[in-house]
This record gives sequence, C-alpha cells and structure tokens, in this order.
Amino acid sequence: MNNIDFDFLESAITTDSKLFSNNEILTWLSDRREATQTVVRQIHLASMKNWKVDELTGDVRHVTGRFFSIEGIRVRTNWGDLPRWDQPIINQPEVGFLGFIAKKFDGVLHFLVQAKIEPGNINIVQLSPTLQATRSNYSQIHKGKRPRYLEYFNGEKKVDLLLDQLQSEQGARFLRKRNRNIIVQLLDGDDVEPHDDFKWMTIGQLKELIRLDNVVNMDTRTVLSGVSYGGYSKAALEGMYRFESSRKDSRPMLRSALLNGSTRNSFRDILSWITNLKSTYDLFIDKIAINQTSDWRHSGGVIARPDNKYFSVIGVNVSIENREVINWDQPMVQPSQEGLVAFIVRPIDGVYHFLVQAKLEAGNFDIIELAPTVQCLTGNYRIGLNEYSVPYIDEVLAADKDCVLLDVMQSEEGGRFFNEQNRNMIVDVGENFSLEIGDNYCWMTLNQLLRLIEFNNYLNIASRSLISAIKF
Amino acid sequence: MNNIDFDFLESAITTDSKLFSNNEILTWLSDRREATQTVVRQIHLASMKNWKVDELTGDVRHVTGRFFSIEGIRVRTNWGDLPRWDQPIINQPEVGFLGFIAKKFDGVLHFLVQAKIEPGNINIVQLSPTLQATRSNYSQIHKGKRPRYLEYFNGEKKVDLLLDQLQSEQGARFLRKRNRNIIVQLLDGDDVEPHDDFKWMTIGQLKELIRLDNVVNMDTRTVLSGVSYGGYSKAALEGMYRFESSRKDSRPMLRSALLNGSTRNSFRDILSWITNLKSTYDLFIDKIAINQTSDWRHSGGVIARPDNKYFSVIGVNVSIENREVINWDQPMVQPSQEGLVAFIVRPIDGVYHFLVQAKLEAGNFDIIELAPTVQCLTGNYRIGLNEYSVPYIDEVLAADKDCVLLDVMQSEEGGRFFNEQNRNMIVDVGENFSLEIGDNYCWMTLNQLLRLIEFNNYLNIASRSLISAIKF
Repeated sequence: MNNIDFDFLESAITTDSKLFSNNEILTWLSDRREATQTVVRQIHLASMKNWKVDELTGDVRHVTGRFFSIEGIRVRTNWGDLPRWDQPIINQPEVGFLGFIAKKFDGVLHFLVQAKIEPGNINIVQLSPTLQATRSNYSQIHKGKRPRYLEYFNGEKKVDLLLDQLQSEQGARFLRKRNRNIIVQLLDGDDVEPHDDFKWMTIGQLKELIRLDNVVNMDTRTVLSGVSYGGYSKAALEGMYRFESSRKDSRPMLRSALLNGSTRNSFRDILSWITNLKSTYDLFIDKIAINQTSDWRHSGGVIARPDNKYFSVIGVNVSIENREVINWDQPMVQPSQEGLVAFIVRPIDGVYHFLVQAKLEAGNFDIIELAPTVQCLTGNYRIGLNEYSVPYIDEVLAADKDCVLLDVMQSEEGGRFFNEQNRNMIVDVGENFSLEIGDNYCWMTLNQLLRLIEFNNYLNIASRSLISAIKF
Repeated sequence: MNNIDFDFLESAITTDSKLFSNNEILTWLSDRREATQTVVRQIHLASMKNWKVDELTGDVRHVTGRFFSIEGIRVRTNWGDLPRWDQPIINQPEVGFLGFIAKKFDGVLHFLVQAKIEPGNINIVQLSPTLQATRSNYSQIHKGKRPRYLEYFNGEKKVDLLLDQLQSEQGARFLRKRNRNIIVQLLDGDDVEPHDDFKWMTIGQLKELIRLDNVVNMDTRTVLSGVSYGGYSKAALEGMYRFESSRKDSRPMLRSALLNGSTRNSFRDILSWITNLKSTYDLFIDKIAINQTSDWRHSGGVIARPDNKYFSVIGVNVSIENREVINWDQPMVQPSQEGLVAFIVRPIDGVYHFLVQAKLEAGNFDIIELAPTVQCLTGNYRIGLNEYSVPYIDEVLAADKDCVLLDVMQSEEGGRFFNEQNRNMIVDVGENFSLEIGDNYCWMTLNQLLRLIEFNNYLNIASRSLISAIKF
C-alpha cells in the first residue's frame, strides 16, 4: 500500500480537524469578507486601462501583450450536428500553478488553504489553494508582488511531492489552457507560519464545505479531484477495518473509489473507447479575428451575439480596499445564464459506477475530454428543454430527493468568469436504470476515473468539480 | 494476473513457432521481393501527377486536397538554444490504423504479419501489420481498393480487443500525426484465411527478426512496443517458473519489463518530472508558406536548404509490377544522412534502468515526448561531432562489443520517407556509470516505460522502435 495514498485517504475521511472546526473556518471566511471592500463595476471594453481592443480585428489584449487575450476561433469538426462554428475564446498560453502545501498534524495530512479574493466569485472570498499563480505572476516579469509561498513550488525549498498533474480548464471558454495541479508536503521538522489569509484544513473538511454553495473555489476543487486513494481488491476492501467505521452511509462511494476489478468495463476497454473516439473525430481550430466571426460582435462595449446566447465578454473595473487599495481593469466572461453539471451514478454489482460522457469542446487539448453525464454550461437548461434536448437531463432534474447525493452551486474561476455559477449534482438512479448507453457514454468506477486523472487531459473540469465533492 | 498480459508474455518468449520457422519467413519474404518489380524514380516536384505545388506559397498538396500535404511552419520555443526556426513539415490530419489480427495456435498467440511493399523502404518489402490504412484509405472516399481485413478493425466483425492506443509518428517530420495502434484477437472458433502476402508469427519471432537490418517495418515495431506484460513484485518475480528457463542471459531484461517497485524513481516522480517540463517549456507553431520559411526553398524540383542539412522533400514516381501494374507519384522526405537512436541502460539494484531523454520536436502533440538517450536523426552524427555536441554519444559509439545489447539498422515509415534508415542501439554501460544526469533525463525501468506507453503521446517513435527490439 502506497503511503501517500493512505495519507490522502486518512485526510479525506477526517472531517473534524483538531486545529479548526468548519464553523470556525466559515466565521474566519466571513471575517475576511468583511475586512475588505471589493467593488466590481462593468465598464466599456474600450475604456479598460492597460487593455486594448484592436481596431481592425476586434481582439482584446493587454498593452504588454502578456496575461491573456480574447481572440476569435473558427471550429471545424465531424462531431455532433454542427460542423462549423465561430466563437471568441480566452487565449492564455502559459501554465499556472494551483498548489497546496501539506503538513501532518497529529498524523493527519492538512492543507494550507487561502481565503482569496477574486472579483468574479459569487461571495468574492472563497477557499483557494495556497498558491494560485500564472507564469507571468511567478516569473515576476511585471512589477506585481511575489506570490506568497512560491518558494515551496518552484524548487527553491526542498519538499516532498505528493501530486503533480497538468489539468485542463473549461474547453468551451479557454484555448488549450492547462494548470499545474500540485501538492507538496513539508519535510519533517519544516514549518510555515500561516499568514492571516491562510488556515490548515483536511481534505475531509474541504469536502464538507464543498457541499455549501460557493465556498470552495474552482482551483481548490480541481486539485482535490486529482487525489487518488490507491486500489484494492474486493476481498481486501471488505476486510479493511477503516470501512467498518460508523460512516456506513458513505461506504459505497468509498468502495467505488478504491475498488480494483468487478468493474463493468476493464481499464483497457475504457482506453480503447477513448482511442476510438479520438481516431474518429476531428477538431480543427483556425484563429480568426473577432470581427470576422459569424454571430459575435462588439456592441455597446461588450462582445456578444445578437441573440445574447451562451456568454458575453465584458470589461470590469475592480477595486479592492483592504489595508491598501488595489484597482485594475480587465475583461471577463459573463455567462448568459447558470448551467448544470451532473453525474448519474448507479450500483453495478454493489459498486457505484459513473455514467461518463465524452465531450468535444473547442478549446480541448486533445479533441474530447470526459465530462459529466449532463453538462449544459452554455445553454439555458431551465427553459431551453424544448429548444434542444440534453440526454439524461430529465432523470437528473426529476430525481427523487433521496437519490440526490449532491446538489450545490459552485462558482467557476473568479479571475476570468464574472459571477458564473453552475449547479453541481450527483444523482443515484438505482439498479433499475438501463445499462445500455450511447457510443459517447461509458460506465466507470470512481477508481477508474481517478486513475485517468493522473494523466493529462482526460477528465474535464466539470467532472473534476463533481468528483472533488464526493465524501467518504 | 491479467490473462492478456500473460498471453503477450508467452507469445514474446516463443521464438520458434510450430507454424513457420524464421528461416521459412525470410525465404518467403525474399520470394515476395522477387515476385514483384518495384521501381522508384525521383522526379521534379512540379511534375508529379495528381499533386500540385502552389505557386504562391510553395506548399505541396494532392489535387483532391486529401492524403497529406507539405507545408511550412514557424516554431517558437523557450527549450534549448534555438528560440525560433522554420521548417517544412508533413501535415496529415487523420488517424490511421496500424493493426494486427491475433489468434492462438497451440495455446500461443500469433499475429497475422504482412509482407508489404513500401516504396521508401530499404529492401522494399518488409514485415508489416495486418492492416496499415489511413482514414482516406479505409473510408474509401477514393476509388482505391478496400484494404484487406479492414472488417476486423472497424467494428464490422466481432473480435476481442487486446490493445488500442494512439501513438505519435516522428515529431521532427510530421505535424501532430498519430496512428491507432491496435491488436484484435479472433473469437474462439473464428478463423481467417491468410492471403499469400500474410503469415502467422509470434511476438518472439518478430523480436528475433527485428535484430536483422531492415526486415521488420516501423509500423510493426510501434505496435509491438505498446504490448505490456503485466507487473509483479520482486518476490513474485523470483518465484515464477518461467524465469527459471534456459534463457538466463535475457532474464535481467524480462525482470526490468515486469518489475513493480525497486525502481530508481516512483511512477509519481516520473509523472511529476514530465509535468514540470511541460509547465516550463512552450512550443508555439504558426503555419506559414514554404516560400516564407527562412532557409528552405524550392530549387531544382526539390525543397531543401542551401546547405542541404537535415532533409529534403523530393518527388518520386513509383511503379509496382506484380500481377498488375500500379503506378503513382508522390512527395517523400529524403534524409541528408542516416541517424542514430540509442538507449543507454544500466542495472540499478539488479534491475535494468533506461536513461530516458525528454525531447522537444516541432510536430509533437504535447511539447515534449520521451526519446532515447541519444537521438540524432537530423544531424550527421558520424562526422558532425565537432559541429555540435550530443550528450552520451561517445558512450554509445565507443561501447565495448560485449556491452552492446542491440545494434541494427531500421527503416523509417516507407510510405513517407525515402530510404531513411537509422542505427538502433541499446548499450549496457554497467554499474559504474554515473546516476547523476541532466534535468531533461530520467532513469526508468522498462515496466515504467511500458506503463507510460498505454497512454497517448508519452514515448516517441524512436523510443518505441528500440523497445520493440527487446528480447526476453
């Protein structure tokens, strides 16, 4: 048994830390919120300080050419019903850190969590990783302050690496964007002094708080989703004392997170299913000017479609008043409405299986990624049902209350998305639910999903957000 | 123990099939060679039938716009000493099949191997997979004949899938090209009638023949390299009867192929090493016209550099006379000289470890891929040593004869490369060789390499070619 896996498992099961209770954490979080005054005002894209809308192309760039830009793309594919479309997309061609420092207290791994202000977040302040930094930040090409605790992630300080993965962001909004999801553990005897905005918490505590609306930010959720807990045979699993604990209600999920074997599809079958889809479907992206895109136009200081569908790109002015005042302008993506991401799960031979959807999105690094059973981020699922049909959406929305394992609102990344929140659901549809599914769906155990996450660009961020919320 | 893994291992160890000896295979191969007359003539790029050199851009395309094209790219990167360069590249944006049909004879898995004519091959006819087909071939948009045995790979016939992976081609020559490497096993009771150009062979037989110059083609080698043989603890491995066989000399390699644990780096360390490199280094590719590239020009009917370095793009006329006459023109890439690919290996705690190099090439799908210790495909390693230094090349070329585990000439893909062959070597540098290596190198066991191959785009084709030659 791999020690790291066990340490992660122990931390995920520990919902009460001796350091701080979750009530104390929530109080601290609202104190942080009250201690700062953050004002986010929508402004005309062309009036943003330090940003330029190119007259000819309509593209939006920082005057330094760095950070990120809003550009147009033309998408061609043989996937689905729409062989071609144009859209604006965020181009940020650098890998950022999303990193936690970890340390054992009383033998249990804790993570240094930050109460971080992000202008796009609902609630403004959410729980985020120890370090959230783009390469522009941490290479300090700009005069910005050096990010706190950077030295534990960039090789300056010696640490133990527990996790180090490249994971995607929203493929419908970002062009091939990836972040480095990383967890480092302090060496024995090493310690860090938590700054006021930081507190030590277990994975189990974070998983409890993920069940509250808009408390745990997207970057925390993606790092947590990458944690795997090892793998065990059914027999070994049944015998493990840990699963004889009082949490009888959650044992099936833990089992599905750990079980090797007794799966509907072998891991080889799953890789072959992915290979087949990637061999069959094309995704060609050509960069074009925003002004050349069909449907999307600059109008009234925003980039939007005449029908206002999907999303718009807006300018904002952000002002944060804390001990000092910080003020800047930037473009943000504002969704047209809230979305829904949901996994359907059902037991097969006593083990929960997830109904996973292969999904093509314009910004995907490798054609398709694995999405939740239902993902409607850009359509209006509440009133749009007659407009286009989303498979399995009825099963999710009409599910009996007792079958809903998760139902919570989560914010997307608050540095790029303005007040974007999506409903996150996991629904147990029971053993009578048909196992027969379409070609772009596949039944997988949580253990199989976690094994795929170890490698780059398999699970999309919506899947990972849901997986991070699974309690043992 | 996974049955497929064991079947593969059995087949890899069986070097004498009861169906055909390797001498019979070699005789058959030379009979096939004599039964056909293949003439490949260099012609002016502009005079190729059905192909067009665009007057403005200099790009080379098929008149239908299909198959493949020769285009220019501008490469920008922060890797290595050269921040920018231009080059022509083969653009073939579709995934092809490289597939074997497998069947058990006397309980041992055999593969249906084809004696296939390819115009670029040295020896013209080499041993190739059952099916080698691009999507243009197998979707039969063109009038070409339907490829033989296609029905076992495209879902028409029910089979057992043993392997199904997307693997890269040469990143220095192809733009993000990948093939579907696939092995299917006939269902019990199913049989196929081998056409004259096909024979059943074990993996062990193919591994013997890979040790002869230019007999086993690149496509066979890449499919074989993807086969993994399971994983065992050191204790289990010592106890397995199979390793008490007479092949005492090769036991260390088998052990390194199977061993879990006792490795220099954990699998997590290896993934983190890759993540770090992919997070640190950029690879930006802009398509430009051939005529816009610095250094590369159309001249005298070829595309080449004034100094003739690296490679040139030539036109060829191919004429194959068998029962019927087939004749066509196409562009091919002709290397300036033969190259060298070599793994340095050494035992660490009794287990062979491979010195793996992370390498950036323009056409890579994801920035870097894992290459052999030494890979000089485009420079002249024989006389070019003073021109630029290639790490570890001296250790390889000056190795004692007894330490050379492999030394053989292999052809690159004969459908695109004209008479391109590279020297393939594996050299055991012994236990005194320093374990200290540069940041872009990593020690891995064969088992770890085989585990990475299961996922897309980790090992490059030169690494895979060498791995396919490893005998147990």
